[in-house]
Amino acid sequence: MTMGKAVVLLSGGLDSATVLYEAKRQGFAPYCLIFEYGQRHRKEIRCAQRIAAHAKCRHQLIKIALPWKGSSLLDARAALPRPKSGGPTKIPSTYVPARNIIFLSFAASYAEAIGARAIFIGANAIDYSGYPDCRPEFFMAYRAMLAKGIKAGIEGKAIKIYAPLIRKTKAQIIRMGLKMKVPYHLTWSCYRGGRTPCGTCDSCLLRRKGFQALRMEDPS
Amino acid sequence: MTMGKAVVLLSGGLDSATVLYEAKRQGFAPYCLIFEYGQRHRKEIRCAQRIAAHAKCRHQLIKIALPWKGSSLLDARAALPRPKSGGPTKIPSTYVPARNIIFLSFAASYAEAIGARAIFIGANAIDYSGYPDCRPEFFMAYRAMLAKGIKAGIEGKAIKIYAPLIRKTKAQIIRMGLKMKVPYHLTWSCYRGGRTPCGTCDSCLLRRKGFQALRMEDPS
Repeated sequence: MTMGKAVVLLSGGLDSATVLYEAKRQGFAPYCLIFEYGQRHRKEIRCAQRIAAHAKCRHQLIKIALPWKGSSLLDARAALPRPKSGGPTKIPSTYVPARNIIFLSFAASYAEAIGARAIFIGANAIDYSGYPDCRPEFFMAYRAMLAKGIKAGIEGKAIKIYAPLIRKTKAQIIRMGLKMKVPYHLTWSCYRGGRTPCGTCDSCLLRRKGFQALRMEDPS
Repeated sequence: MTMGKAVVLLSGGLDSATVLYEAKRQGFAPYCLIFEYGQRHRKEIRCAQRIAAHAKCRHQLIKIALPWKGSSLLDARAALPRPKSGGPTKIPSTYVPARNIIFLSFAASYAEAIGARAIFIGANAIDYSGYPDCRPEFFMAYRAMLAKGIKAGIEGKAIKIYAPLIRKTKAQIIRMGLKMKVPYHLTWSCYRGGRTPCGTCDSCLLRRKGFQALRMEDPS
């Protein structure tokens, strides 16, 4: 069964790779968007391109320069926070203001231009860093805004936003991905973007927790 | 009285120039965002920079490359539509999918990074081209989305979106601007972006209608 085109936001990380395969599994033809936005872990861009190629999906690189700082994820000299035990309670310094809002906006434009009726995003509100634009209530509001702000929306053909991982733990995400043969060896999670993962940043720790819960070795 | 910082979306056209001066009049310190997004009338970018300098306001240029087409405003070889008499009834080909959604997303990111609590946009739903992302119901929905999706929003310090021209005719906008000494001679409206305005595109006709209603000569 074909579900038509879907725009998939692909970061090169574990979550968005899983979402790409989930979109395929549901019968969508994925069109991937990959963003270069000044992130210190630029390595994830190359990983995203490899994952899209491995999945035999089209992919577009979007370069955006944010001339303002305000995030430790955009500044290679800034210290990266470590999550507190029990998970993050406040928004950490790696938060990039409005990042998913910007990414989704490009996705909406692309979806409207190619006639896609779906956008997939690997956001997660369980084993996550606490960013506001990763929460279910944000996606509800974004969907409502799109229904008013784009041509398809006001013509009654809404573009749906799918965040299939939103309420899953990292372990559940990995288990779901393994069934679909997601190439986790190609994914990159570390915020530092060195030659090998640092093992200490928020993103590395969340990833390790997921594989440990499944008593598995991380294939990356 | 100072109202704090405001991000102003500045296109180089008549409407956004008026909005910049309105933000100043209300006591805000404007921080202008100017976009280079592949528009055929790139001339407006230089105009926007001159207007910001004339108003003695900071301005940032954001370059974004949309690798998809789907708009006659991004394709110098495409024909531009002429408005029907009685105003446009459907969305014209100059519509750029999700353009204001993208611009506002950058504005939200900038506002959050500099601690601004206001975004000004020169959108207008009376003498306009019929774009969905220029209508009051869109801005309501965008505001609600921002309240959920950015740090300031979830901390209860909402970023407000001001669209002070939304229900004004072009003549009312010009009258309002003249009182504030908006430098209309520096503004650029024509979609074609030639050496002089074409006088036949949607944007030229709306502008002419405004000055004619006031029995005035266009100073540009």
